[in-house]
Amino acid sequence: MKNELNFYHEINPNLSYDRETLRWNGWGAYEEDFHAAEHMPAILDFLRGELSVDSSVFTPPAPLEEISLPKANLSPLVLKNLQTLVGSTNVTIDKRERILHSAGRSYYDVVRLHWNALKNYVDAVVYPRDEKDVTKVLQYCNKNKITVIPYGGGSSVVGALEAIKGKSSKSIISLDLTRLKSLIDINEENQTAQFQAGIYGPHLEKALNERGYTLGHFPQSFVYSTLGGWIAARSAGQQSNRYGKIEEMISSVKMITVDGEIETGTYPASSSGPDWNHIIAGSEGLLGIITSATVKIRPIPEKRLYFGFLFSEFKQGKEFIREVNQAEIETSMMRLSDEEETRLFGTLGTLGKKGILSKLKHSIQNKVLSFHKLDQSKTALIVGLDGDEETVYQNYIKIREIANRHKAFHVGESMGKNWIKNRFNMPFLRNHIMEYGFGVDTMETSAPYDKLEEIRNDFHSKIRKAFPHSVSLCHISHSYHNGACLYFTVIFKMDTKKPIEEWKKLKKIASDVFLSHGASASHHHGIGNDHKDWYQKEFGKVAISGLSALKESLDKNGILNPNKVFHN
Amino acid sequence: MKNELNFYHEINPNLSYDRETLRWNGWGAYEEDFHAAEHMPAILDFLRGELSVDSSVFTPPAPLEEISLPKANLSPLVLKNLQTLVGSTNVTIDKRERILHSAGRSYYDVVRLHWNALKNYVDAVVYPRDEKDVTKVLQYCNKNKITVIPYGGGSSVVGALEAIKGKSSKSIISLDLTRLKSLIDINEENQTAQFQAGIYGPHLEKALNERGYTLGHFPQSFVYSTLGGWIAARSAGQQSNRYGKIEEMISSVKMITVDGEIETGTYPASSSGPDWNHIIAGSEGLLGIITSATVKIRPIPEKRLYFGFLFSEFKQGKEFIREVNQAEIETSMMRLSDEEETRLFGTLGTLGKKGILSKLKHSIQNKVLSFHKLDQSKTALIVGLDGDEETVYQNYIKIREIANRHKAFHVGESMGKNWIKNRFNMPFLRNHIMEYGFGVDTMETSAPYDKLEEIRNDFHSKIRKAFPHSVSLCHISHSYHNGACLYFTVIFKMDTKKPIEEWKKLKKIASDVFLSHGASASHHHGIGNDHKDWYQKEFGKVAISGLSALKESLDKNGILNPNKVFHN
Repeated sequence: MKNELNFYHEINPNLSYDRETLRWNGWGAYEEDFHAAEHMPAILDFLRGELSVDSSVFTPPAPLEEISLPKANLSPLVLKNLQTLVGSTNVTIDKRERILHSAGRSYYDVVRLHWNALKNYVDAVVYPRDEKDVTKVLQYCNKNKITVIPYGGGSSVVGALEAIKGKSSKSIISLDLTRLKSLIDINEENQTAQFQAGIYGPHLEKALNERGYTLGHFPQSFVYSTLGGWIAARSAGQQSNRYGKIEEMISSVKMITVDGEIETGTYPASSSGPDWNHIIAGSEGLLGIITSATVKIRPIPEKRLYFGFLFSEFKQGKEFIREVNQAEIETSMMRLSDEEETRLFGTLGTLGKKGILSKLKHSIQNKVLSFHKLDQSKTALIVGLDGDEETVYQNYIKIREIANRHKAFHVGESMGKNWIKNRFNMPFLRNHIMEYGFGVDTMETSAPYDKLEEIRNDFHSKIRKAFPHSVSLCHISHSYHNGACLYFTVIFKMDTKKPIEEWKKLKKIASDVFLSHGASASHHHGIGNDHKDWYQKEFGKVAISGLSALKESLDKNGILNPNKVFHN
Repeated sequence: MKNELNFYHEINPNLSYDRETLRWNGWGAYEEDFHAAEHMPAILDFLRGELSVDSSVFTPPAPLEEISLPKANLSPLVLKNLQTLVGSTNVTIDKRERILHSAGRSYYDVVRLHWNALKNYVDAVVYPRDEKDVTKVLQYCNKNKITVIPYGGGSSVVGALEAIKGKSSKSIISLDLTRLKSLIDINEENQTAQFQAGIYGPHLEKALNERGYTLGHFPQSFVYSTLGGWIAARSAGQQSNRYGKIEEMISSVKMITVDGEIETGTYPASSSGPDWNHIIAGSEGLLGIITSATVKIRPIPEKRLYFGFLFSEFKQGKEFIREVNQAEIETSMMRLSDEEETRLFGTLGTLGKKGILSKLKHSIQNKVLSFHKLDQSKTALIVGLDGDEETVYQNYIKIREIANRHKAFHVGESMGKNWIKNRFNMPFLRNHIMEYGFGVDTMETSAPYDKLEEIRNDFHSKIRKAFPHSVSLCHISHSYHNGACLYFTVIFKMDTKKPIEEWKKLKKIASDVFLSHGASASHHHGIGNDHKDWYQKEFGKVAISGLSALKESLDKNGILNPNKVFHN
């Protein structure tokens, strides 16, 4: 029998990461798209209704040929020198490569590509073959004051890949680390594994799974992101309740800087000064290039149980999450959609199912929900449990008890299975609805429990006021003993005349709301270029000048991903 | 019935921390000493036998009157200005106060006081009353280039309090934070509490216990150390398996710098750049003064179960610990003494018990152990479980199963109770045996599981060779999924002619061993002045220059605890 909860059965293990298989102006690989075409008319109709939009015009993205990018600003001599360093086939100024490496996958990035409005491009892409190549390229670029922007999977949604030159630089290269993709060692006694940093999520998990282990790090970008990128951005996987955020999984990390390298020790904890693992995690390429890391691994859980509950309101679901965490019941995830998200995603999920049987099923479902007074308004919660059979079962019992106390309606495992099946697919939908004038962006933050509701209310109210043709959705995506991450999705009628100004307005409203409640500038996306102003405002000038000085000491010529995060 | 596992019944809740109640040249408060006097003859006899020492001469410590310290190098004007800033009674140049604030409680510190060999002293002690005072003093000292060494409980064992002046400073003050001792807020919804940083361990726990909560941070220095000191040194409590190291308990922390302040947000996790909580934790007063922190709290555990096992050898006990941690069975502690430590502490513990009943009990014990082939050589393990009744019981069953597989002999709860009763007492013993020419020092490190045995063997062999009249003991004190902390105790015949050179030799051997195996310079004591060379060698020049630059940016005149940790 096929294991329905095999975490990889939806991922093509043979996915090629050849650059031409990846969309240069949207999410993911062409071959991995979820083929929404047949459902698009129904989805678009639904969105038009939701957003009070009369009609939407097909506005296809600018084709590659039309993208106007300046000539690579790299002298033939520099190009030749770089080729001498890393091999002639590992340096390219190909147009498609330059475009692919000049943006991440945020709405801001893809909307600019869509409208041919991206202005800054890297001049060349360099693929180091090993750590020695990284050192050679860094030293060469430092000497010649060429800006270097490290690139892993390219999935940044915070402008970390924005092609911004350093003050003294004339040229920029993208340093693509995906050739550094080996498993270096699995140590079963210590339960650690060392990988080169450019390995993609699925390859890393496959290498571990073959030996019976997992890292347990599954961000939504899992298929298209790398270990080094996760660390650089302090990423969180969907199962972070159990496995922790990526910075908690690091035992040791190696970062190559302009002047040499920093490699932290492979011990479990220390009191040796400030923790370099926590300085490197979050450094987003400003301090050096992460080339390898030793991470904590765990046996693949014997049992995975994912199931759903419905609560009558968000507040109840939030209280349930808090209680479970504070009772120290280990879940791998708890994901609570608010009323609006539950309703909207609930309907979206049924759009493709028009058969008689499906209609009957929904009619029965609605009667049951009506009986539980959940027909008008409800919030859906998915709980995931990973572990040995006995612990999972015991925790399931404890969770059912708490859920009963909160008058939750148990909807069984189908909701969990459905979520697992589709959990990496959402970003593909954007590729398609953008062509019909719908924008969609996501923002996230973290806060203590007592602030979650006020932040959610404030966000929705300000967004709905500023964007009358929009829906504003929220879910709790990661949770802790003391608080949680709020994850917002805003779908809006795109202002096709001023799509960029529109996005800036959206970002400003969202980040202002987070900051005004003392919440974090980001919980797991990072800072990059897009959150820089709010991040610097939050931490204040002393903290920022300290980190700037740290950067300047390691990177005197300011060539490493300059003018982002803590660097001005 | 008295709860035998009340964690505080051995601590005097009315302990006064008035400066005259604290020993200026040894551990703790006079009134809290464990009154070893009656047992000293037996203990000394035993040590003479163990260390192959014929006799030992009583060498009492230098009395206060004889301590020769230079006149306070502070002009009357500066003194008056400081008094104007914080109040005239809150600045002192009293001799005893200056001595107390010029050393921590390491063997190196107390041996120098014992022999009147400490050379550097702070010129004055300043007691700020609140954060505003801290800011005023820092700004004044910065303007006048007066070195500032923050002081919490004064229990550093790594030379963090060594009175070293900055390059441009003529004077040094000790900034004693113990007046900043308030509970600011308990938030029961978030399960967090905010305290001023100068609060002592027992006061912090008392404030939480009264509301039903605990922080769960119990370092051996618990009675004589403060929250701010724990954070500055990245401390670990004895129950860190459950509660984490102090840096994992921080939600938010406030640090006042020369130029302003850095206060991190009170959210549970973030991806906002490098983690300032992890930069401040371990900064040991070099970057700023920690004035308050919001920490994660938990309900006082319903059940505490502490019990012991005997294993025939260290390796088996280590494997047991690894298996329990990797099976994700939550303990609050596992403490495994090696063969030598088990034997020696076992005998030491019986020295005061000479009655017929006690002898009979030991005779029976020995017969049982002989039956289990544990009479010749054995290693003792204490396991602590804290949590709700059900979980503690379930974990106890799981642990018994694993122990049986490792042929462990279960010795019941008395060993656990005994440990709890005496867990803060060991440092007092040093006060007494030093007077009879015995030195004792402790060193600790962390390493992955596959390195623990080689480090232990190497340490013992090098120490025993270099110190023929010594015993070298080891235990695993804190453990993790991937490795553990090794804690060494060396008791040696003091070279009363060259006690300081002798200690330097000891420290060098120990730290060289740790570094040569890739282990950490420290797991929970910190770096200070004593570990600086090894720490800097381990992290390398790039990392050190980066942190130095960070310090120089925050502290341009180099007044904050200079020339320690990462500053040269």
